[in-house]
Amino acid sequence: MTDHTFDKAMALEQSGAEPGRFTGKTSADYWNFVGPFGGTTASLVLQAVLGHPELLGAPIALTVNYASAIEAGDFEIVATPARTNRSTQHWTVQITQNDAQGKAQVNTTATVVTAVRRDTWSINDAPMPEVPPPADVAPYGDMPSGVAWFAQYEMRPVSGAIPHTWDGSGDHSETVVWLRDAPPRPLDFASLASMSDMFYPRVWLRRTKRVPAGTVSITTYFHADAAQLAEVGTGHLLGRATGQQFRNGFFDQAAYLWSESGKLLATSNQIVYFKE
Amino acid sequence: MTDHTFDKAMALEQSGAEPGRFTGKTSADYWNFVGPFGGTTASLVLQAVLGHPELLGAPIALTVNYASAIEAGDFEIVATPARTNRSTQHWTVQITQNDAQGKAQVNTTATVVTAVRRDTWSINDAPMPEVPPPADVAPYGDMPSGVAWFAQYEMRPVSGAIPHTWDGSGDHSETVVWLRDAPPRPLDFASLASMSDMFYPRVWLRRTKRVPAGTVSITTYFHADAAQLAEVGTGHLLGRATGQQFRNGFFDQAAYLWSESGKLLATSNQIVYFKE
Repeated sequence: MTDHTFDKAMALEQSGAEPGRFTGKTSADYWNFVGPFGGTTASLVLQAVLGHPELLGAPIALTVNYASAIEAGDFEIVATPARTNRSTQHWTVQITQNDAQGKAQVNTTATVVTAVRRDTWSINDAPMPEVPPPADVAPYGDMPSGVAWFAQYEMRPVSGAIPHTWDGSGDHSETVVWLRDAPPRPLDFASLASMSDMFYPRVWLRRTKRVPAGTVSITTYFHADAAQLAEVGTGHLLGRATGQQFRNGFFDQAAYLWSESGKLLATSNQIVYFKE
Repeated sequence: MTDHTFDKAMALEQSGAEPGRFTGKTSADYWNFVGPFGGTTASLVLQAVLGHPELLGAPIALTVNYASAIEAGDFEIVATPARTNRSTQHWTVQITQNDAQGKAQVNTTATVVTAVRRDTWSINDAPMPEVPPPADVAPYGDMPSGVAWFAQYEMRPVSGAIPHTWDGSGDHSETVVWLRDAPPRPLDFASLASMSDMFYPRVWLRRTKRVPAGTVSITTYFHADAAQLAEVGTGHLLGRATGQQFRNGFFDQAAYLWSESGKLLATSNQIVYFKE
């Protein structure tokens, strides 16, 4: 563990003798409006799996369901290998916090698939959009107040930045943005999981209206392996996110994360609650 | 329950006194190459949740992880409400079968989110492609042998049908197809879950090469409510699926299902194992 804020937020301690049972503490640095930034929660789920002594392979799929608000303070996270095959492994993960009566309450359910990859025929049919390099795109300077996690990322929006005025003029929901940790930190699976959730709610952009909204469930597929992550190092990723169907309180958004050299590292989808 | 083959495949029996614990039997009618059609498995997960006496609302998100092959015969399925909020509910679901020693082995892990929807601003930013109506598109006649489930659907491929020759000439992975149950059956959430998985592996089309492939994890978001499903009735859905990143043994595919009148009923993503 380094002293990077992200590593501090990812700190988990083995709890008792049972493998895969950890305790942790929410990070004030990655606080969102009313709870931890959901990306950090997804990363913690993955960290618990990656910290299990029986881990097989590397992450392929991660689904995190935000069942209930996580309160500031201690939490427990348990990663269980539900099935281990020759080259794939299926995990269930839960995060709990004790209520006032000291009873553990589930606030996060999750599943993870890990696998040993083999070299095969490969092709990327979702190429990176042609955009100016990160150095030619100004960083987003006007952070919304009360959202600590925003400051933990360097974001250089090519298009679709958070609106400055909420005038209802919106006609699309696409954001394209260069991003990386601030200060820069070598990319790993945990930080990639977190970055998959860093696109603000598409409904804000689509409507140019700030309505209450929050991710209900996110699924991220990891296409990168450790060698590709190492190749990225502390470089920027290009992220692209768009909303698809907005309907009666929920919408889905699809996201892509490429390395600066155009490799598609992860694809991610989420379903988001919104009001009004 | 009607005597439609799909309803027979969905038959679950309450097991003991614990709510949400059911027994079922795999369906020969929906058999795939080496196990049940994964769509049916996803539907069974959803059925278990919908059959729980504490159910709140209707399906919003469904993630099913195919942890291990399901053998022909009996299985047990347990749906647990991990967290119930005012208007959303989070479920964990597992399917098990007994091994030769009579020990329950997990073959499927899953999570489901259900919710009470409210009327809000709504818009569909993923419009249906312009295609000829179902009656003007010929049904796919040449079913691959040994795949019973294929015969349970009427499929009218507009483009991207399963190749008849495997000559390696493929240059895209998009299928657009009209589909419904055969014989027609009124659409419900369970059958919509199943139809979200009915696109054959994109790698076959992309490479025009038939390599071993199987879904590892599928996530479906339900945009339709009961009224929209009733409006579809026994009508056709238009499905569209494309692969995105194929890399070292895994690829992801994105799918959309519209009603004939152009309403986007569900979006679905899956990550698929492939060989070579």
